[in-house]
Amino acid sequence: MRVMVLHGPNLNMLGTREPEIYGRTTLVDIDAALVQRGVELGVEVWTFQSNHEGGLIDALQAEASRSDGVIINPGAFTHYSYALRDALAAAHLPTIEVHLSNVYAREPFRHHSVIAPIATGQISGLGWRGYVLALEWLAAR
Amino acid sequence: MRVMVLHGPNLNMLGTREPEIYGRTTLVDIDAALVQRGVELGVEVWTFQSNHEGGLIDALQAEASRSDGVIINPGAFTHYSYALRDALAAAHLPTIEVHLSNVYAREPFRHHSVIAPIATGQISGLGWRGYVLALEWLAAR
Amino acid sequence: MRVMVLHGPNLNMLGTREPEIYGRTTLVDIDAALVQRGVELGVEVWTFQSNHEGGLIDALQAEASRSDGVIINPGAFTHYSYALRDALAAAHLPTIEVHLSNVYAREPFRHHSVIAPIATGQISGLGWRGYVLALEWLAAR
Amino acid sequence: MRVMVLHGPNLNMLGTREPEIYGRTTLVDIDAALVQRGVELGVEVWTFQSNHEGGLIDALQAEASRSDGVIINPGAFTHYSYALRDALAAAHLPTIEVHLSNVYAREPFRHHSVIAPIATGQISGLGWRGYVLALEWLAAR
Amino acid sequence: MRVMVLHGPNLNMLGTREPEIYGRTTLVDIDAALVQRGVELGVEVWTFQSNHEGGLIDALQAEASRSDGVIINPGAFTHYSYALRDALAAAHLPTIEVHLSNVYAREPFRHHSVIAPIATGQISGLGWRGYVLALEWLAAR
Amino acid sequence: MRVMVLHGPNLNMLGTREPEIYGRTTLVDIDAALVQRGVELGVEVWTFQSNHEGGLIDALQAEASRSDGVIINPGAFTHYSYALRDALAAAHLPTIEVHLSNVYAREPFRHHSVIAPIATGQISGLGWRGYVLALEWLAAR
Amino acid sequence: MRVMVLHGPNLNMLGTREPEIYGRTTLVDIDAALVQRGVELGVEVWTFQSNHEGGLIDALQAEASRSDGVIINPGAFTHYSYALRDALAAAHLPTIEVHLSNVYAREPFRHHSVIAPIATGQISGLGWRGYVLALEWLAAR
Amino acid sequence: MRVMVLHGPNLNMLGTREPEIYGRTTLVDIDAALVQRGVELGVEVWTFQSNHEGGLIDALQAEASRSDGVIINPGAFTHYSYALRDALAAAHLPTIEVHLSNVYAREPFRHHSVIAPIATGQISGLGWRGYVLALEWLAAR
Amino acid sequence: MRVMVLHGPNLNMLGTREPEIYGRTTLVDIDAALVQRGVELGVEVWTFQSNHEGGLIDALQAEASRSDGVIINPGAFTHYSYALRDALAAAHLPTIEVHLSNVYAREPFRHHSVIAPIATGQISGLGWRGYVLALEWLAAR
Amino acid sequence: MRVMVLHGPNLNMLGTREPEIYGRTTLVDIDAALVQRGVELGVEVWTFQSNHEGGLIDALQAEASRSDGVIINPGAFTHYSYALRDALAAAHLPTIEVHLSNVYAREPFRHHSVIAPIATGQISGLGWRGYVLALEWLAAR
Amino acid sequence: MRVMVLHGPNLNMLGTREPEIYGRTTLVDIDAALVQRGVELGVEVWTFQSNHEGGLIDALQAEASRSDGVIINPGAFTHYSYALRDALAAAHLPTIEVHLSNVYAREPFRHHSVIAPIATGQISGLGWRGYVLALEWLAAR
Amino acid sequence: MRVMVLHGPNLNMLGTREPEIYGRTTLVDIDAALVQRGVELGVEVWTFQSNHEGGLIDALQAEASRSDGVIINPGAFTHYSYALRDALAAAHLPTIEVHLSNVYAREPFRHHSVIAPIATGQISGLGWRGYVLALEWLAAR
Repeated sequence: MRVMVLHGPNLNMLGTREPEIYGRTTLVDIDAALVQRGVELGVEVWTFQSNHEGGLIDALQAEASRSDGVIINPGAFTHYSYALRDALAAAHLPTIEVHLSNVYAREPFRHHSVIAPIATGQISGLGWRGYVLALEWLAAR
Repeated sequence: MRVMVLHGPNLNMLGTREPEIYGRTTLVDIDAALVQRGVELGVEVWTFQSNHEGGLIDALQAEASRSDGVIINPGAFTHYSYALRDALAAAHLPTIEVHLSNVYAREPFRHHSVIAPIATGQISGLGWRGYVLALEWLAAR
Repeated sequence: MRVMVLHGPNLNMLGTREPEIYGRTTLVDIDAALVQRGVELGVEVWTFQSNHEGGLIDALQAEASRSDGVIINPGAFTHYSYALRDALAAAHLPTIEVHLSNVYAREPFRHHSVIAPIATGQISGLGWRGYVLALEWLAAR
Repeated sequence: MRVMVLHGPNLNMLGTREPEIYGRTTLVDIDAALVQRGVELGVEVWTFQSNHEGGLIDALQAEASRSDGVIINPGAFTHYSYALRDALAAAHLPTIEVHLSNVYAREPFRHHSVIAPIATGQISGLGWRGYVLALEWLAAR
Repeated sequence: MRVMVLHGPNLNMLGTREPEIYGRTTLVDIDAALVQRGVELGVEVWTFQSNHEGGLIDALQAEASRSDGVIINPGAFTHYSYALRDALAAAHLPTIEVHLSNVYAREPFRHHSVIAPIATGQISGLGWRGYVLALEWLAAR
Repeated sequence: MRVMVLHGPNLNMLGTREPEIYGRTTLVDIDAALVQRGVELGVEVWTFQSNHEGGLIDALQAEASRSDGVIINPGAFTHYSYALRDALAAAHLPTIEVHLSNVYAREPFRHHSVIAPIATGQISGLGWRGYVLALEWLAAR
Repeated sequence: MRVMVLHGPNLNMLGTREPEIYGRTTLVDIDAALVQRGVELGVEVWTFQSNHEGGLIDALQAEASRSDGVIINPGAFTHYSYALRDALAAAHLPTIEVHLSNVYAREPFRHHSVIAPIATGQISGLGWRGYVLALEWLAAR
Repeated sequence: MRVMVLHGPNLNMLGTREPEIYGRTTLVDIDAALVQRGVELGVEVWTFQSNHEGGLIDALQAEASRSDGVIINPGAFTHYSYALRDALAAAHLPTIEVHLSNVYAREPFRHHSVIAPIATGQISGLGWRGYVLALEWLAAR
Repeated sequence: MRVMVLHGPNLNMLGTREPEIYGRTTLVDIDAALVQRGVELGVEVWTFQSNHEGGLIDALQAEASRSDGVIINPGAFTHYSYALRDALAAAHLPTIEVHLSNVYAREPFRHHSVIAPIATGQISGLGWRGYVLALEWLAAR
Repeated sequence: MRVMVLHGPNLNMLGTREPEIYGRTTLVDIDAALVQRGVELGVEVWTFQSNHEGGLIDALQAEASRSDGVIINPGAFTHYSYALRDALAAAHLPTIEVHLSNVYAREPFRHHSVIAPIATGQISGLGWRGYVLALEWLAAR
Repeated sequence: MRVMVLHGPNLNMLGTREPEIYGRTTLVDIDAALVQRGVELGVEVWTFQSNHEGGLIDALQAEASRSDGVIINPGAFTHYSYALRDALAAAHLPTIEVHLSNVYAREPFRHHSVIAPIATGQISGLGWRGYVLALEWLAAR
Repeated sequence: MRVMVLHGPNLNMLGTREPEIYGRTTLVDIDAALVQRGVELGVEVWTFQSNHEGGLIDALQAEASRSDGVIINPGAFTHYSYALRDALAAAHLPTIEVHLSNVYAREPFRHHSVIAPIATGQISGLGWRGYVLALEWLAAR
């Protein structure tokens, strides 16, 4: 089993940016935790971050056929990237949308996700552990 | 550690009602799974279901002081029960809002939660396992 | 054949409250007329009123399996009780939503029904006879 | 007693058009059923169909003074014909708005009626029997 | 000089319908007053009423080339007949939109006119004299 | 008979400002035309202009008891001065709202009048003659 | 004279919940203050709190005929309980809606009251003294 | 193969009306071009224009059973004629909605089509050639 | 202690204007009642009325430093005077917004207050006694 | 003559993705058909696809000066890429916006195009032949 | 060269009011800085502040013909004074709208300016230096 | 001191594109003027343009730590790039949003900026000099 993990814009700055919202864990930490948990679960974990909407779509298209599930934190693309939504829908894979913070407790524009209707499920507000729970769910499925 | 699990209206019919949306698992099955997982994690799990908004609030007020976290699937109350929201906010406990199905792929009125802004996090679309992941997160916290 | 008749909040005050809108017929009068018309049609009529949303849901869940149809005047719950809507949808019974007055000639909030999309049909503005017409339609079906 | 029955646009195609929504009963069948029921109730029934908004208004104006009630299925005019609304209001007759299907379970534009505020009552979703119930109500009045 | 006067749906019932809003003057009275005032001003007045949107457009198209101005009370077509609006715009004639009653003191749907943006001016709330003032303005122009 | 004529903000600049919209007639010209037409009709005309909302209200309150009608061009106050609306409503006088240009052919904010619902009628788009028509209507009343 | 005082959901937690918003006064304190002030004013004060919408309606219906006025703090029911609104309207009693905090300085959903249009008046933001002022007003009436 | 071509209100004035928007080609020119192109493609072309919504529906109902496709320029009916929409939907024919001008570069009300959701496709902004392209597409289908 | 009482536009006409809404008490009566109650409470009361938004702001700025509280009935300025709001916010004084009538039972535009979010509290619908209650509350504070 | 053909995000997956919506034709098939039809018409066809908004803009800027027309299927960028809109507007070339499916019969977000107002025309719902029709129109222009 | 500087309501309190938003600089300080910078640039600077909308319009009308540019901080009038907008538009002078704070980071009502569409440009969030930059721009023009 | 200047999509075409809106100055001219002014002010100026949202974010992240301020003209990204907004917010630098034209006098979609709430200030409508003023303000800070 193989799971693709996609991180959207600015998530490469995690741990350095607004730690009062996102904490001090870096993206490298999260990816390492996912890979390690994947090893325990017998799941190959492939991770990718980009600030480019097109870069995420290119990666998704390239990796879809060899993946069994997607974990995606679309970052700000959550709110307007219908192109990413179309790419995810076309991949026809179980997809978990993850947000580190509780987006419903922040600015109104963060309450709306164009990704959510085509995802399998969402986990938000549970910090970096949200990614791990998503991985466990995909593995248990 | 003690976790309160609250189920909103109609969830007592789970497994008999619209299985194409909610599956065949009953609420008894879910509560049993939570209690069992609680035993493994060293967490006491207390569960309660009501079709009465006031019944859920009464229970929450009564149990809040002896609980360390809340898992709540507010059912249809998700969309309009500001009274339940106020009760949850007043409890000052880590709170995970759980939905069995992906509410964002259903009718528009299900996309809005009045509970979400005062919850710690949300898990939706992951079926009964969403409850278990919520419990694990509270235990790991 | 058995038909469940549910009356929502404040309908127990019928005949005493704002007669210029609702007339002087009491709920007891209406229930009696329905039972009598049921006898003529060979339909058992079971009636229930509650000011409690949860009470209506409890009754509906308890009686659904032994009923062949539902007549419901949700009163003010018409406009916001998604919980009642879910309970009605789960019952999978032919359901007629009845309103005594023409709700479209009153305050704007009364124009919107959250029940209507999952009902079989609606009758409004025809006074207590609307209930009887609903019963006849269910019997003739 | 004399009742005017008005059918709006495309209802002349009934029974040939989208039977999964409207059934196989034709408009001739409905008119015949109304006339026959009228004979039983001692009510003269006059029916008219037009695809022309102005044709319906002309007919309504011409027949209003010799009628004691109106049954109207405005078809798609329900949603925008303020001219038909004004004509009905000016007729000062008891008026029942009838819809064959449950309009609230269809496209959003069908949820709004510009006729409803000036009608006496509405019956929707009860198929051709809805017309007959309307006639019985007018006769019983 | 020749002025075309167009009356929309239900205005043929004027004087018989809702006199508390529109008064007891009939359309024949208004047309006679306009013709007579036209004689005094040296203006030929041609009047036409229809309950048919298409009838008004046909008339407008037929008469436009021999007219020097339009007075129109579109009745309920005011609020939705973009077809009438297009016909009026295409006529390229000075056009006064007249309403007998003050539409802004009535139901909200009457506050919006799709005709107004392409008219030269509007007169509302001044009763049948509003037509005469419109004629005088066109004559004085 | 005495008619009060109120001109709102910036109308003192008439004839100097944006003549392509308002023409070259000055406010002095309009007031003179109204006074002269008043003499012909046996109507005393009192005129007042202010850029101050409070100034217009003060004047209206002071003159109301000795006036038989109001002609008001509220200028930009049309769109937001609920205070002026209240003052006009309290005066209980026949009131004509006049606009020189066709406000419905200009910016959207000019389409809405807070004055219109409490006025007797409106004349717009007919230039300075609109004031004279208003005066004639008040005199003829 | 007898005044009914109704407290909505979560108000039983007053003094323990979010004191920075609601202060440390408990509901028992408020009820005691009202009863004592009632004694001074010669007014019998009857108080009731429930987390159940139906419970408040039941109480209101039961006590209405023996009461001369209502003081109600509907809590979160303020924003959606049309059932409570209908019950209050049917009681036909002078009714003061009281809120401890200034609801207009809090979340937007708290700015809208479905109770306000059928109340006699409102007092908000004046803390527990708001209840006492309401009682004094009813007594002075 | 037989194709029905329907032209909505005011299109009979084409070539005389606002040529800066619609050009100088007349409707007769367009119909002739369609018939001629039809001959080349072996398609019988039947054309019809009306300013009457009901007239277009009558024609559509009469011709539907002997047609294999519809080309319709609904003119202003595009924006509100749900009756025409229902008639087109009931015809169950491949249907191309054609607009001469780019409606999205004009007034906002022209951006919304009630016909589009039930059409097969749309061509707009390509002038009279848009009709010919629609015919070619139906023929090639 | 010194309390500033500000009355907005048209309140100087109180008692003469629409007594069915506002009663027959004049502003002089209210001011006298406030001064007298102030004497009893040991509070100096300073009152001011203006139809000028700027006049109210000037007064407020001049008196703020020597006042301990503000009672304001902003009249129609309630709904749009952000300038008055800013002036009140800058005064940093306890402020009670008073309305004589229940604004929530009147036209929709009266339901929204731009002053409310920066006030301490509101009293509405309690007539002239609302001012006195506000004074008592400020004195008791 | 030279025509630039731009394909937006995910169109490279055409023929593999959701064939029930888009059919089995691949983008290579479409480009080949366009090039071949271009040869017949004497038009050089240059095609480009990118999942990157910036990539499409770069290409458009680079090719604009050597092109005589643009055919663009913006994919999901249709709904939010104001940057692409600005780039197309700056190119000052005849531009046809093409959509394979009837976007008005799909999700609401697909009904709105930010490109349409600055395009010359649109073709939607006609599958891959829509591109060819667009090419023929540009060639015939 | 002569530049008119207009300050709207409450700006006379600058430096004393909410310094955490507006700083401690007074209006006198700003006017002095502008006059001094004007001397350096060879520009005569005329400044005026009023809490009265009408006062600002009067001043603008009086000074417009002898001015070559306008710098205006409309304060709260920014959001609703269409009268001030009309006065500025009529002045036909280059106009810079200045705000001390970043209005887009404050309450939503402050995000909308009715002045902006008729200004030449805007500077916001740059404190008192924003005025000086505006002056330099006008001088350099 | 070092200032980063970011130019969004299509700004590389400046001077060639729609000069009636943007003038004939090229981006090279603007960058040169900024660098030269920077030399005078002792500020190092680094400039970057991209049509790629991700490219701007990459650049911003790379340069943020060695910069003391940001000047950004986000072009069309102003209206939807929440990703760019997040990147700017994370940089924690004084940021001036610059627009060459007065965006409030153009299409409605240009009136809303998703960048503005997290910027320090905005300058719009002042042409290329707006950039220079922004630089001077950052230098003077």
